[in-house]
Amino acid sequence: MSFRATIITLFPEMFPGPLGQSLAGRALETGIWALDCVNLRDFGLGRHRAVDDTPFGGGAGMVLRPDVLDAAIGQARDGRPLIALTPRGAPLTQARIRRLAEGPGAVLLCGRFEGFDQRALDANEAEEISLGDFVLSGGEIAALALLDATIRLLPGVMGAAESAEEESFSDGTLLEYPHYTRPAVWQGRAVPEALLSGHHAAIAAWRRAEAEAVTRRRRPDLWARHIASQPALP
Amino acid sequence: MSFRATIITLFPEMFPGPLGQSLAGRALETGIWALDCVNLRDFGLGRHRAVDDTPFGGGAGMVLRPDVLDAAIGQARDGRPLIALTPRGAPLTQARIRRLAEGPGAVLLCGRFEGFDQRALDANEAEEISLGDFVLSGGEIAALALLDATIRLLPGVMGAAESAEEESFSDGTLLEYPHYTRPAVWQGRAVPEALLSGHHAAIAAWRRAEAEAVTRRRRPDLWARHIASQPALP
Repeated sequence: MSFRATIITLFPEMFPGPLGQSLAGRALETGIWALDCVNLRDFGLGRHRAVDDTPFGGGAGMVLRPDVLDAAIGQARDGRPLIALTPRGAPLTQARIRRLAEGPGAVLLCGRFEGFDQRALDANEAEEISLGDFVLSGGEIAALALLDATIRLLPGVMGAAESAEEESFSDGTLLEYPHYTRPAVWQGRAVPEALLSGHHAAIAAWRRAEAEAVTRRRRPDLWARHIASQPALP
Repeated sequence: MSFRATIITLFPEMFPGPLGQSLAGRALETGIWALDCVNLRDFGLGRHRAVDDTPFGGGAGMVLRPDVLDAAIGQARDGRPLIALTPRGAPLTQARIRRLAEGPGAVLLCGRFEGFDQRALDANEAEEISLGDFVLSGGEIAALALLDATIRLLPGVMGAAESAEEESFSDGTLLEYPHYTRPAVWQGRAVPEALLSGHHAAIAAWRRAEAEAVTRRRRPDLWARHIASQPALP
């Protein structure tokens, strides 16, 4: 059974978008995953198919109505997890992506305007996930990112040459070391000598040191977790 | 002068993609921002226009060549910042997005395969940015997310009704409080009473408490920063 993604959105024409190309696009064509969209507008109310209303308590922006959201969720839902993309959510992690890739798929709820009526998320036990500490105009591009990360891990999507081994976050702790390819000298810049040595242990040690250095510099948070996860010295 | 984005990619057909719709799409049509792509393949070498080669030191995957990357960057670059999308980068933040939105635009370098030859990034002083702690199949969807977040902040893109005030990360510390709209009671679930009170101070206090509670629960990292940023009690 293939991985199935259902997107609940006001902009179904945004899908598959970039996921129709390259790795994900080929996997879509060969049936490794499947995609369908539920148009939130189809569940809108009245002559104008209204999906939102003003927020209780005041404030700018419009809020997606619970009854409209719930009707769309009801049409999409089966045993798959329901994920609402929102900056209020828990940060997306590679561990979550891996678990998704092992499952039957996901229903992804994309917001627009100010956000979702919280009751629709609570009643449907939606998992709230955030891409990062920035605000998008809607959940659609977050859904594309989540799916892209998941699809590449599905069996048969990546060849051996695109192996998922040794990547950033694969072990949850260090960023990846830098990469170098031909030419060995370019504009006076030589590839680090350790990489040309042919000594596997020296190469592994150099890469480890570089991964540690970049993590320490750019991600003190990951570095602290890495240090905490090391066995204590005897 | 409008905001101009140039994407260096092997998949120019992925753009504008979802940015051709909705808020960003209307802004693109009205000239608030502009988009062009540089196809990395155009700078490939030999009869097959090769853009990548095997990594020095061994390992899976292919690495984008420094000479090919540099030629493409050279064609795209002017005074705008050069941003390479990579999981090795510093995490994207709303503060970085705000600074981008105040500038002339950006050149966004999208990787595929195992990554970039680091020398091309170093020689061009590329800023390395990561969307989050997960691995995408390439930088393209990360570029879409970065641009979407930036474009919505450009003058004239959001109306008053879509105001960027009071959003998650706008002050860098707390997640946003939950939203509620009509109906006031839905499936036996009532909107929190404080929001119906009409008392501005009570509403603000309730929202503040909710924002603190969700931040504490979902984002201990943001919560710790929030606590640290509070003035000490006298």
